[in-house]
Amino acid sequence: MDRGPPRPAGGGGGRGVTPPPEPPEGPEGPEFSLADVAREGLIERPGADPAPHDGTGRVDLTFTVHSLAPDGTAAPPTQRGVRVPPGVTVFDAASWNGIAIDSTCGGHGTCHKCRIQVTTATEVAVTRHDVRTFTSAQLAEGWRLGCLVHATRDLAVEVPPLTTRPKAATVGIGRQVILRPALQKRYVELAEATLADQRTDLVRLTDAIDDLELTADLHVLRRLSTVLREADFKVTAVVIDEALIDVEPGDTTAARYAIAFDLGTTTVVGTLLDVGTGTPMAVASMLNAQQPFGGDVITRISATMMDKDALGRLQQAAASTLSALAGEVCREAGVDPTQVYEVAIAGNATMTALALGIDPEPLGVAPFVMSAAQPPSVLAAEIGLTLHPRARAFFFPALGAYVGGDIVAGMLATGMDRDKRTRLFIDVGTNCEIVLSDGEKILSTAAPAGPAFEGGAIRCGMRAADGAIEVIKVDPHAQDGDPAVTLGVIGDVEPKGLCGSGLVDAVAELVRVGLLDPSGRLVPDEDAKDIAPALADRLTKIGEERVFVLHRPTPDADPAECVYLSQRDVRELQFAKAAISTGWSLLLEELGLEHGDVQQVLLAGSFGSYLSPASAVRIGLVPQLPVLRIVAAGNVAGEGAKMALLSVRERAGALALLEEVTYVELSDRPDFNDAFVDQLSFRH
Amino acid sequence: MDRGPPRPAGGGGGRGVTPPPEPPEGPEGPEFSLADVAREGLIERPGADPAPHDGTGRVDLTFTVHSLAPDGTAAPPTQRGVRVPPGVTVFDAASWNGIAIDSTCGGHGTCHKCRIQVTTATEVAVTRHDVRTFTSAQLAEGWRLGCLVHATRDLAVEVPPLTTRPKAATVGIGRQVILRPALQKRYVELAEATLADQRTDLVRLTDAIDDLELTADLHVLRRLSTVLREADFKVTAVVIDEALIDVEPGDTTAARYAIAFDLGTTTVVGTLLDVGTGTPMAVASMLNAQQPFGGDVITRISATMMDKDALGRLQQAAASTLSALAGEVCREAGVDPTQVYEVAIAGNATMTALALGIDPEPLGVAPFVMSAAQPPSVLAAEIGLTLHPRARAFFFPALGAYVGGDIVAGMLATGMDRDKRTRLFIDVGTNCEIVLSDGEKILSTAAPAGPAFEGGAIRCGMRAADGAIEVIKVDPHAQDGDPAVTLGVIGDVEPKGLCGSGLVDAVAELVRVGLLDPSGRLVPDEDAKDIAPALADRLTKIGEERVFVLHRPTPDADPAECVYLSQRDVRELQFAKAAISTGWSLLLEELGLEHGDVQQVLLAGSFGSYLSPASAVRIGLVPQLPVLRIVAAGNVAGEGAKMALLSVRERAGALALLEEVTYVELSDRPDFNDAFVDQLSFRH
Repeated sequence: MDRGPPRPAGGGGGRGVTPPPEPPEGPEGPEFSLADVAREGLIERPGADPAPHDGTGRVDLTFTVHSLAPDGTAAPPTQRGVRVPPGVTVFDAASWNGIAIDSTCGGHGTCHKCRIQVTTATEVAVTRHDVRTFTSAQLAEGWRLGCLVHATRDLAVEVPPLTTRPKAATVGIGRQVILRPALQKRYVELAEATLADQRTDLVRLTDAIDDLELTADLHVLRRLSTVLREADFKVTAVVIDEALIDVEPGDTTAARYAIAFDLGTTTVVGTLLDVGTGTPMAVASMLNAQQPFGGDVITRISATMMDKDALGRLQQAAASTLSALAGEVCREAGVDPTQVYEVAIAGNATMTALALGIDPEPLGVAPFVMSAAQPPSVLAAEIGLTLHPRARAFFFPALGAYVGGDIVAGMLATGMDRDKRTRLFIDVGTNCEIVLSDGEKILSTAAPAGPAFEGGAIRCGMRAADGAIEVIKVDPHAQDGDPAVTLGVIGDVEPKGLCGSGLVDAVAELVRVGLLDPSGRLVPDEDAKDIAPALADRLTKIGEERVFVLHRPTPDADPAECVYLSQRDVRELQFAKAAISTGWSLLLEELGLEHGDVQQVLLAGSFGSYLSPASAVRIGLVPQLPVLRIVAAGNVAGEGAKMALLSVRERAGALALLEEVTYVELSDRPDFNDAFVDQLSFRH
Repeated sequence: MDRGPPRPAGGGGGRGVTPPPEPPEGPEGPEFSLADVAREGLIERPGADPAPHDGTGRVDLTFTVHSLAPDGTAAPPTQRGVRVPPGVTVFDAASWNGIAIDSTCGGHGTCHKCRIQVTTATEVAVTRHDVRTFTSAQLAEGWRLGCLVHATRDLAVEVPPLTTRPKAATVGIGRQVILRPALQKRYVELAEATLADQRTDLVRLTDAIDDLELTADLHVLRRLSTVLREADFKVTAVVIDEALIDVEPGDTTAARYAIAFDLGTTTVVGTLLDVGTGTPMAVASMLNAQQPFGGDVITRISATMMDKDALGRLQQAAASTLSALAGEVCREAGVDPTQVYEVAIAGNATMTALALGIDPEPLGVAPFVMSAAQPPSVLAAEIGLTLHPRARAFFFPALGAYVGGDIVAGMLATGMDRDKRTRLFIDVGTNCEIVLSDGEKILSTAAPAGPAFEGGAIRCGMRAADGAIEVIKVDPHAQDGDPAVTLGVIGDVEPKGLCGSGLVDAVAELVRVGLLDPSGRLVPDEDAKDIAPALADRLTKIGEERVFVLHRPTPDADPAECVYLSQRDVRELQFAKAAISTGWSLLLEELGLEHGDVQQVLLAGSFGSYLSPASAVRIGLVPQLPVLRIVAAGNVAGEGAKMALLSVRERAGALALLEEVTYVELSDRPDFNDAFVDQLSFRH
């Protein structure tokens, strides 16, 4: 692939930047035929590439963006370089990177508005839509419809000033998303039928919305003629993608709502969005009502294998959780639930299967197979949500049984496929998902970390709730009443236990001061006195097991009444972190990279976002890197779900990830066990 | 458009007939690029035409069909000329005319099997699928994939011998339909998943059926993993179009059933078909259970306007009628209803709306507007049918509120759009639909004939059931005990009344012998004795109204106890026939044709098929033509429904009719009343 710098605008075969041409009116516009185009050696090949690419690597697009000053004169153009997977359209590449190009049809080649000029001296295909839009001279100058140019090599592109100003929203990790939601509303005032104009009601409506190719199902047809006549032919069409889902009397275009769900195994978060402005109207979260069936996906899958009714009850529990959140955000924002027309749901493969009522058993047993990577579009009502009766539910696709839709959403929110840097994405949890991109290739894998990070199998473990110790600092030589142990406690209350980030801090601090040796063993009491005189008295025993006391409720409390870290807790964490670091180590190895090559580590998920980067480095949970390179990414699954609601192109980007990302199955690798043993140690 | 004769095979630029090339294996096959194609001046433009046509007229295709003798040597080729609307693919044109070309994908460009050679010296577009299938030399010789060549001008086409023998069925008016039903079953034996092959269950299945681009909905995904594993990965995929609707354990390919419904206002007919062989397995008919709401569409529409619950009850009545017929044909053929996967329904616009639960009110009041011309594809369950739970229902599209899906089906069955002759199609009934084609243009209209033909508003009128007089011959000079009136009675029982064909015969015979004058008046008694001595005593009075007695139960029966034709009955028929003949007269006028130009009149519908052609000519119901040109077409709506089930291409042909046929609204014409008055007379 040609990776040379794009030819600067104005160079290359005399293709100077000319003002954007006026699009010809109607289909009778073009003054020349396809035969003329053929004579000029331009080939029409919508969707095809002159040199088919293998789905790997990236192409560089250099956009020169023109705009008008407030007084209507040309402002100095700005230049932006972007890097996208080959085959992406110029329109999508711009859109994904916050560069606005005129469009009303959303890249379907029908509105003929996304006019751009390719100034690279390379032949770019002419489609029949281009022929209808541009003159022969304009085509020769490189003018094309941006949504039909597939970037298969580096290109320089001129973007004319916008004729309409699209709205944009910033979501995810600084992602600027141009609003083009799947949900659209169009208010139309139609002429009434006459004997001379007997168009069907549907055609009368769709003729007025001719930039979309609308389809109507039976339910909307059953209402259509009545609503049109009762509303005096002044109605609002409610459209998702190109499906007409309802016709509402009068102008209801202001009410365009959707809900983004992060459907976690533990916690579920819902965000009500006004997709017309990108504004989040309300957010709510609650525990997943599936909890009684088990804390993690494996126990829930097991439940369905033990009891044939469990699948139905798990599905019902997912539905009731999503319903409760939907009700809560609508109430909070004062929005009528029937004005919510779409939901997007980012969940792991098991949560997705359970919400849809698909038997998850094959996800839970080798060889870990999904029914389908991309769940079909369903009605929100089919998953138990009472919103608009024809509201749609979009589920994110999954890369594998253990790299699910939540991770795909997270990759979308973090732009994992649209960044030149070498970046490592780690969603820390019972099942830990890892994605590594070197700017060319993207690998993913899943590591079975076990429940330690969720507080499971840890003596004093608890979830990150009030009373949980989440931050720990120790001073081995504290004197004069200075605290030897400083605790950060959620809710600033009496400590009740240790959550995942506290566990990592505790182990990291004890490793740092030497009370835990590299093998993960608490040092003998006699050594502790030398190493950390201010902390030595906290080393004690409960039964036969050695523990380190983090908090004593009263000075003379029995150790068993204290919050402590036990030797077994350390082992739990040690195994968990070894599983994870084995995962990313093998991915680094696959791409021939060293720790230091990683330019950014994104810690995702509700646990990762609270983790101390330094502690993560200290215990080897992440590569040995300067802590500034370790970034908490927040609820990236929820952010990805919002992006999917705000932009059909972002949603298409999520689907494209299925092709771009290579899934590496760790359990199939002969070198896994050796690597795992290497990673058990706390010394790197 | 070039309408010259197609260049004979072997002529034209040295493009001799060569044996069909072997298709290259896999995507790495082509040894040359699209750039090479561009150099040769061939443009790829799938779906586009070099000279866009206006949807009118026809193109001539000459097929030279090669075949192999039983010993494997080449048999002498046969030649067939066909005439199709411009833009139709060569594959469809062949298929519609019973010429078989290899294909497994059904014209989607994916199986790469429908290889044909265009021998006309005209440039035919090369698509990227052609590039993958043929060598550069073969492309230069005119080899193309037939499903991607759109015939926009006259072409000569060589068809290589079939490598597989498709099945065909004869339906409609001698229509040979090549079986390619929307319903397909595919038996596959899949490899079980392993850690090295973690393809999703859906991909594992669709990879094995790679000539179709299958989509799966939630319902099939819910079953998929369980069925695959329980059936040891040996399953049958049930596909409609490209939708995977079910996965059945084991090999169930032998059970492929569908039901064709003619959903008439009066009578509903269901035919169970084995779509794998085209064999009708059972036929049943019954009265439409909507009868209590009124005998014709207007009274049923009125019912919905009077009573807001009536629509639901009419929908329920349609559902119960269709269900009862489905049950009956399945029982008769010993077929499990869950093995019926599709139904096709041909009904007029009102019957279609009522079956779908769509408010028919706008159909019943000016300006007579439909909700949609093409009803959406729905589940059979949504219209109350208990067949396979995901069975689909296809409704025929309508041309207008009064030229409905039954007429579109009838046009399909009679090949109205694929015949060079000037043909007139008349479906006689309360609402009479008329279609006129001169081989180039097709016009349609509807004439409000009133209930006379159904026996309504006729003193002794009755439906065509046992006891109805359906044939009448009179001999005005009968002597020596020869009958003066000969009656054909349905069921050969005592006559009880007069059905539509009997009514037409009665009037026609009385016109013929002169007892009815051209204005439609029964001649005075004194004239009758001279004109028809053997019949004069049958002219009498009931009250003040003159009648002609057809049948006396006893020699001295009172006239009121007899079966008779009254003066008012004659007026009813006169108005009905005037409405109809005004319709076709105005259509003939539109195309600049005279009566004698009509080469065939097709009398369709349950009434039309029983009508005496001579009587129809005599009373002026049809143009003045030799009776051999008047053909009873039978239940063409039902035949069209069968064709739609047996061939996706025929179904596409039905949809294409919406574009090809021009609907003429009579009630909007200023010349209608003049024409109507002209047509009232019985003398032409």
